[in-house]
Amino acid sequence: MIKGLQSICFDEPPYVQTGAAIVGKKEGEGPLGERFDEIEEDPMFGKESWEEAESELQRRTANKAIEKSGLSKNNIRYIFAGDLLGQETATSFGVKDLNIPLFGLYGACSTMGEAMSLGAICVAGGFAGNVLAMASSHFASAEKEFRFPLEYGNQRAMSAQWTVTGAGAVIIGKTATNVRIAGITTGKIVDMGVKDSMNMGACMAPAACDTIYQHFKDFERSIDDYDMVITGDLGYVGKELLLELLKQKGMDISEKYTDCGIEMFDKETQDTHAGGSGCGCSASVLCAYYLDEIAKGNYKRILFVPTGALLSKVSFNEGRTIPSIAHAVVLEHCE
Amino acid sequence: MIKGLQSICFDEPPYVQTGAAIVGKKEGEGPLGERFDEIEEDPMFGKESWEEAESELQRRTANKAIEKSGLSKNNIRYIFAGDLLGQETATSFGVKDLNIPLFGLYGACSTMGEAMSLGAICVAGGFAGNVLAMASSHFASAEKEFRFPLEYGNQRAMSAQWTVTGAGAVIIGKTATNVRIAGITTGKIVDMGVKDSMNMGACMAPAACDTIYQHFKDFERSIDDYDMVITGDLGYVGKELLLELLKQKGMDISEKYTDCGIEMFDKETQDTHAGGSGCGCSASVLCAYYLDEIAKGNYKRILFVPTGALLSKVSFNEGRTIPSIAHAVVLEHCE
Repeated sequence: MIKGLQSICFDEPPYVQTGAAIVGKKEGEGPLGERFDEIEEDPMFGKESWEEAESELQRRTANKAIEKSGLSKNNIRYIFAGDLLGQETATSFGVKDLNIPLFGLYGACSTMGEAMSLGAICVAGGFAGNVLAMASSHFASAEKEFRFPLEYGNQRAMSAQWTVTGAGAVIIGKTATNVRIAGITTGKIVDMGVKDSMNMGACMAPAACDTIYQHFKDFERSIDDYDMVITGDLGYVGKELLLELLKQKGMDISEKYTDCGIEMFDKETQDTHAGGSGCGCSASVLCAYYLDEIAKGNYKRILFVPTGALLSKVSFNEGRTIPSIAHAVVLEHCE
Repeated sequence: MIKGLQSICFDEPPYVQTGAAIVGKKEGEGPLGERFDEIEEDPMFGKESWEEAESELQRRTANKAIEKSGLSKNNIRYIFAGDLLGQETATSFGVKDLNIPLFGLYGACSTMGEAMSLGAICVAGGFAGNVLAMASSHFASAEKEFRFPLEYGNQRAMSAQWTVTGAGAVIIGKTATNVRIAGITTGKIVDMGVKDSMNMGACMAPAACDTIYQHFKDFERSIDDYDMVITGDLGYVGKELLLELLKQKGMDISEKYTDCGIEMFDKETQDTHAGGSGCGCSASVLCAYYLDEIAKGNYKRILFVPTGALLSKVSFNEGRTIPSIAHAVVLEHCE
């Protein structure tokens, strides 16, 4: 059950009952547009502030996942959720009306990996029947929280990423489905001294490398045992760095690797520079696309590795580094 | 194992291996002064910013807990930790050098309850041998984050609380000791519409009431089955409200009830108005005082209920309410 130094292989793997993803207009115009459950044209989601908009996005996504599962709200034992905002206000206001016990999480953009890991532990240990794991981000609330007011109209560095307006939620439970959570590898904080919040890919790539490398070691597997390794939001810059770092450790995953931040937007037409980012990026891409593909058997086993850059505007303004973390989840097709 | 609507009663309860608490000067001058592992006279903890000071506090507290347990760092499988700052920077920078897989949590001042709950689930489920659960707060980093710069010298409302400079860490494991974690009750978000960040007790009392009431219901117990119910940081205002709210539900716990925010400071001489608050308040009082008292058998069974007010300065400045949450942990003496 406990595997190696940082991993768990579940003896009785819990199953993904269902997933739901809701995104904003720009995300809906991207290559995965058709796969999302809902595309909201209004960036305010009918609310009065960006933070409330993100809360509404969480609320709708959680309700959509519950609705799709056919379960009643009363059958969801816990919510494991988080977002990027200070004190997780998108989550607190987003889930409060659901009236379900909450474990609030903070893992920056790795949150979906953290939520699914803890949710799977809870279900696999017999401590819950069904749980909901969710993460969200919103372009405008994130720019306000971390960078510049939108009204300022600053020019974005080519290494900068575009925070996805989106949320993804999965329900994890005991009932057998076509997708199971076979194992997890929980990340440590990795800090290589990068300080540039306009280059999050460079901050997070070493953490992704650390977790992926440890995963293969803990499970005594190689890339041959996987159909795909999918990081959260390294984008184009982080992707190259990750592949390079893994090569330095003697591991080549380039043929079976992609990143949700790359999959989300069209590079040529959508002007998002280094790709998408945010908690909601990996969460919505997983729920909209990969879960379905695994369920259909188009992938037999993937390693889903959301990556988080643990910065705040205070630590950034104090000139500190950007520590990062990545949490891996093994998802398998089963008949 | 699953109890009622929101609780778990562990079939094989994990044990508190050890606890450690480090606090600031003011806390050291309070009634519990002698019980803390260390009292740091320098509010900067030798660092250059309040945030770095709080990180150093976490680092020292975690190391102290590990040292007292006699375990090596390699035997700690996971850290479950959090703090009050935006994006949890005290935790990210505080634990990064420990090189242990991290589950970052956000539950405002309920974080120690959340950390111990998830840590206990992990150990009880066989997913870890030993884990570390920790929470911290720092008076100056919290004032900067939520209220006014210290330099402004604003007058504090009498209902305001004093954020504790302190951290508490416990190691939870399988080896039998004199203190076990017998069960948990996980809170839902409760929001009664209070908007006053200078009256956190009033925000949090309804959440504490909800969790405590549900705990007794889920376990089919009454206050007679406990030696003490101890909330996190309701302070003097919140204490009265909690007792009143529980009375309205036909439950009188007044003879066996206290609050860590009340225990931390001397009401007459320390001028902290409504009492102490912050993640580190309940965490350090538990680790410095109650764990020892339970180990000695002076308490046979207590309900520890850290309470969190889920506000940010953004949500506060937008005029929104302050949702709250409380997570309960049953701690029992065993021979």
